[in-house]
Amino acid sequence: MICGIAAASIRQRNFRPGMKPAARLYVSEPLASGSEIALNEGQAHYLRSVLRLKPGRGVLLFNGRDGEWLAELTELRKSGGAAQALSLRRPQAPEPDLWLLFAPIKGDRIDAVAEKATELGASRLQPVMTRHTVVGRVNLDRLRARAVEAAEQCERLTVPEVMEPRPLRESLENWPGERRLFACAEAGPVRPMADVLAGGARNAAAAVLVGPEGGFSPGELDLLKELPFVTAVGLGPRLLRADTAAFAALALWQAFGGDGDRRPPRRFED
Amino acid sequence: MICGIAAASIRQRNFRPGMKPAARLYVSEPLASGSEIALNEGQAHYLRSVLRLKPGRGVLLFNGRDGEWLAELTELRKSGGAAQALSLRRPQAPEPDLWLLFAPIKGDRIDAVAEKATELGASRLQPVMTRHTVVGRVNLDRLRARAVEAAEQCERLTVPEVMEPRPLRESLENWPGERRLFACAEAGPVRPMADVLAGGARNAAAAVLVGPEGGFSPGELDLLKELPFVTAVGLGPRLLRADTAAFAALALWQAFGGDGDRRPPRRFED
Repeated sequence: MICGIAAASIRQRNFRPGMKPAARLYVSEPLASGSEIALNEGQAHYLRSVLRLKPGRGVLLFNGRDGEWLAELTELRKSGGAAQALSLRRPQAPEPDLWLLFAPIKGDRIDAVAEKATELGASRLQPVMTRHTVVGRVNLDRLRARAVEAAEQCERLTVPEVMEPRPLRESLENWPGERRLFACAEAGPVRPMADVLAGGARNAAAAVLVGPEGGFSPGELDLLKELPFVTAVGLGPRLLRADTAAFAALALWQAFGGDGDRRPPRRFED
Repeated sequence: MICGIAAASIRQRNFRPGMKPAARLYVSEPLASGSEIALNEGQAHYLRSVLRLKPGRGVLLFNGRDGEWLAELTELRKSGGAAQALSLRRPQAPEPDLWLLFAPIKGDRIDAVAEKATELGASRLQPVMTRHTVVGRVNLDRLRARAVEAAEQCERLTVPEVMEPRPLRESLENWPGERRLFACAEAGPVRPMADVLAGGARNAAAAVLVGPEGGFSPGELDLLKELPFVTAVGLGPRLLRADTAAFAALALWQAFGGDGDRRPPRRFED
């Protein structure tokens, strides 16, 4: 944080008309009236070279804790920049507590999972290694970058946590029992996810589990059947790819158990 | 179609044990017991060079009309091949009548729309040009190929129709009035899609409309508001990308109004 702006100058800027935000950025530093926020090289490049902004322009900043702030760009260099927080635009509010557990998949598909799970309101992305998982390494930095970008674009006030991959069994053995886990099952006599969710409570902690392209192993299926916090659910008669299953399950959960009944912030309703 | 296999030989093959299908392919020719089906160059390449199959192996064939057939590969050359239909495995059955109208988007994203809309059971993919649509040209062959591939993998018995792009206004002016159109709206006081769908009939003809990344124009929004067959719906508080909105809306519709209560074919339940 860069200090030294007088309170009078802050107030003045605060009421300057026409400060229309030209971008929305996730930052890690605390946001409060007058705080100067450092922008990293990537953010400075985006603002300077892609959007062609200059100091004096308004941007929106959020950090997952302090709400969304209108800020003024005060400095833009090649190696970084700074902005000064002016006024709170949207206070931080509770968000759905929905984890996504997914077996890593290849190439662009896992990037799309990070992006769309963020848009669909997942609070945590947990890669899980299953018996039939073929992708060994997960580029967490890349997933995190994609989640940040998606959060910036979709008006979220948080970025989902992107966790280190861990074995599915280990995740299940250390499970917080009050969190219902909806396991998407392509085989077996399970109930449709919508039927299971209908009539359930909104805003309970939950998780969605989608298996690898090869499906769960018989041993994993047996384990899932035994666990009291797991409900196996169906997503219709077509065999969905792992990424598609994740999108469908997250969308259904938000509609029934999450914030699917809410609307985007007011500025998009004009 | 290549003819000339005697009925006795068909019956014999029909009951040969161990004919486990090694692939599932969409073909255009009629399927009936004993019919010889030509395979195109791409299919032959896939079977021969990717899956390394030889004549004598079993495959599943479907054409969107005659159900799914077990067939035996009878010929595999570089330029094409042939298979003989042996026995009906799944009869053709009605499928949800759900169109997806979408403003074309860039690059890989439109390919993913074709793939996932197929998996999520859309019966027709209709690109629509809106005021803010920035992508002028749509590669229909590529979209169709992606839809075929997805249908083959997801166990559908049909491939969605991929239509020529047309202006949104033209689509709306020629609308079959009994088909409800759910327009995903990021602005305005609309009801959540799940609330609108709850209690509605299953298997009525329907369509989902998602706008371009820049949203609908005020004129388009006014037009949509006026039309009696349009219901504007919301998908929660986050601003979804066009592709994400399409996936969420299709998944919700299938859960409430489509076949989300059905299960994949029995062979995946073993």
